[in-house]
Amino acid sequence: MDRIKQTIQKITPIDDKSMEKAQQRLDNLTKPLGSLGRLEELAKLIVGITGKENPDLKNKVIFTLAADHGVAKEKVSAYPQEVTAQMVYNFLNGGAGINVLARHINARVIVVDMGVAQKVTSNKSQVTSFRDKKIGYGTKNMAAGPAMSREEAIRAIETGMEIFESEYKNGIDIIGTGEMGIANTTASSAITAVFTKKPVEEITGKGTGITDAALKNKITVIKRALEINKPQPDDAIDILAKVGGFEIGGLAGIILAAASRKTPIVIDGFISTAAALLACQLQPKIKNYLIASHSSVEKGHKFILGCLGLRPLLDLNLRLGEGTGAALGISLAEAAVKILNQMATFKSAGVSESTKL
Amino acid sequence: MDRIKQTIQKITPIDDKSMEKAQQRLDNLTKPLGSLGRLEELAKLIVGITGKENPDLKNKVIFTLAADHGVAKEKVSAYPQEVTAQMVYNFLNGGAGINVLARHINARVIVVDMGVAQKVTSNKSQVTSFRDKKIGYGTKNMAAGPAMSREEAIRAIETGMEIFESEYKNGIDIIGTGEMGIANTTASSAITAVFTKKPVEEITGKGTGITDAALKNKITVIKRALEINKPQPDDAIDILAKVGGFEIGGLAGIILAAASRKTPIVIDGFISTAAALLACQLQPKIKNYLIASHSSVEKGHKFILGCLGLRPLLDLNLRLGEGTGAALGISLAEAAVKILNQMATFKSAGVSESTKL
Repeated sequence: MDRIKQTIQKITPIDDKSMEKAQQRLDNLTKPLGSLGRLEELAKLIVGITGKENPDLKNKVIFTLAADHGVAKEKVSAYPQEVTAQMVYNFLNGGAGINVLARHINARVIVVDMGVAQKVTSNKSQVTSFRDKKIGYGTKNMAAGPAMSREEAIRAIETGMEIFESEYKNGIDIIGTGEMGIANTTASSAITAVFTKKPVEEITGKGTGITDAALKNKITVIKRALEINKPQPDDAIDILAKVGGFEIGGLAGIILAAASRKTPIVIDGFISTAAALLACQLQPKIKNYLIASHSSVEKGHKFILGCLGLRPLLDLNLRLGEGTGAALGISLAEAAVKILNQMATFKSAGVSESTKL
Repeated sequence: MDRIKQTIQKITPIDDKSMEKAQQRLDNLTKPLGSLGRLEELAKLIVGITGKENPDLKNKVIFTLAADHGVAKEKVSAYPQEVTAQMVYNFLNGGAGINVLARHINARVIVVDMGVAQKVTSNKSQVTSFRDKKIGYGTKNMAAGPAMSREEAIRAIETGMEIFESEYKNGIDIIGTGEMGIANTTASSAITAVFTKKPVEEITGKGTGITDAALKNKITVIKRALEINKPQPDDAIDILAKVGGFEIGGLAGIILAAASRKTPIVIDGFISTAAALLACQLQPKIKNYLIASHSSVEKGHKFILGCLGLRPLLDLNLRLGEGTGAALGISLAEAAVKILNQMATFKSAGVSESTKL
């Protein structure tokens, strides 16, 4: 718990002064005032987060954390549990959606085994960086008791922090969050229910694409998990332990560590945002470090974005996870800071300014 | 008019068979069915447009056409007319928004003088390609008579076709449309009024950012232009001549030529979409070749997108023009085809498929 406390204490408010200066610069660029809309807001926010007048987002890193969920045995997903491990190998070989989109935006992908139910062995032919940080062979079934112990929950968050810090040494200017774990929308809906106090029906979606009957079962399973475990709404570690997942805890840790290093955090979809909610309860200041990349098809997503006060950049009907939406969001963030850094001013370009009309 | 007729005749429906095949491939990629949402739709559409199984969008070109508008003397813009020429020089020196975003997505920008009110002289130090295709020193004031002659309108469209064909020789896989011209939202609102038959108030916005009083004047000016000129709703050339602009005609020509070469066309904001409307009246088949990049803040944009049956990819409160939104849209289009081309299939990656649940 010491590492968590230390990291949380290091997180400061974002830099208002730098943001004011960025706004002045944006207003002097050769374009009508505010005409690049959300790109301008994004540039200004990134200045505030980094405290840098002209931030450079060269080093882009997407953390894709994988883990299994005991609740998968309750038939809450359209895919068998072995798909988690299979997809980890797909990540390592560069064939998954996140690999393609990370290459598109020139980002590194760091794949982490936080708790896959099988042993994952990496080999030299793999094209993607891999970290073995397995906390267990999947969580326990949360519909029958806590998903993990309190100690494991703390360890998951601290492991996330470690992963970020270790990669930070290689250079990081912006991160994206991503995940893979069969049944992890079930855990995320349970977390969402605790935070939003909304009926489980309203915040539970079809995940990878289940039938209406299976959705009904998924809702029943989540209700049972909440009843049996009674997670404490004011205790993020308790929520994570009882109805969370190893990858969700890891992402919460990465988010806190990134904020402590003044690094902009681009959040992917539903599961990543659930992790951000947990991080935010541990340290509300992180809200300002978050950039919501997209609005997921998954039903509960808009409610937790609302909780965090985040407006997503994209709405492309995505629901893949892995960090795919975050990759697209990072590209917009990079475009935004390039506008700030590279555009000519009215003065430098000799362009007449607007008249009062 | 011969060139226009020939180009129009060359435009064929998009390739349904290839699209079916693309859908099959998309459904076999290692992701839940349809979970990359609009990226998948986009990939499939680009296959249909190009007729290629695995389209490659390496050569990305943004055409930014500039021209002046006689109606500027009615005080419809917050900026003086000389800004058009000044911004052309800014484009040529690489300091404008479109230069920054084109570099971000690795696209070429072709800047064209279609009718700037001053002589534009290019020099060797410029970093951007320039074409001098001036049809006149700005249009005439449409509030006092037609903006241009019918012959000039035809010449503007044919010039656009020429510009596309000439650059096509250097390699083009996808294009974006862009423009610059003080007072060109006024012309675009007039075109929109003719097509949508909506009251001028509903489809006229603040352009570069004018006051409420100036907006009122802009609406009055547009109404007068429509009354005096009576553009014929079923005659695109007549509309272009009476209330259009040289850059708008040029863009319509580029759009038609691109469709005739099976090239995907990413439309920027309000003015570009008005040009697409004109092109679409000349050849309705082009609709399927169009990708709407974003939803502009400019009030009339959603109505003309509706006319064309287009759903924009982005909603970032942009209203700069130049092709800036198109640049961001092209990046998404490229991401989409990379998904199709580069992702592993369930079979190739050895990932289990979903069970019927």
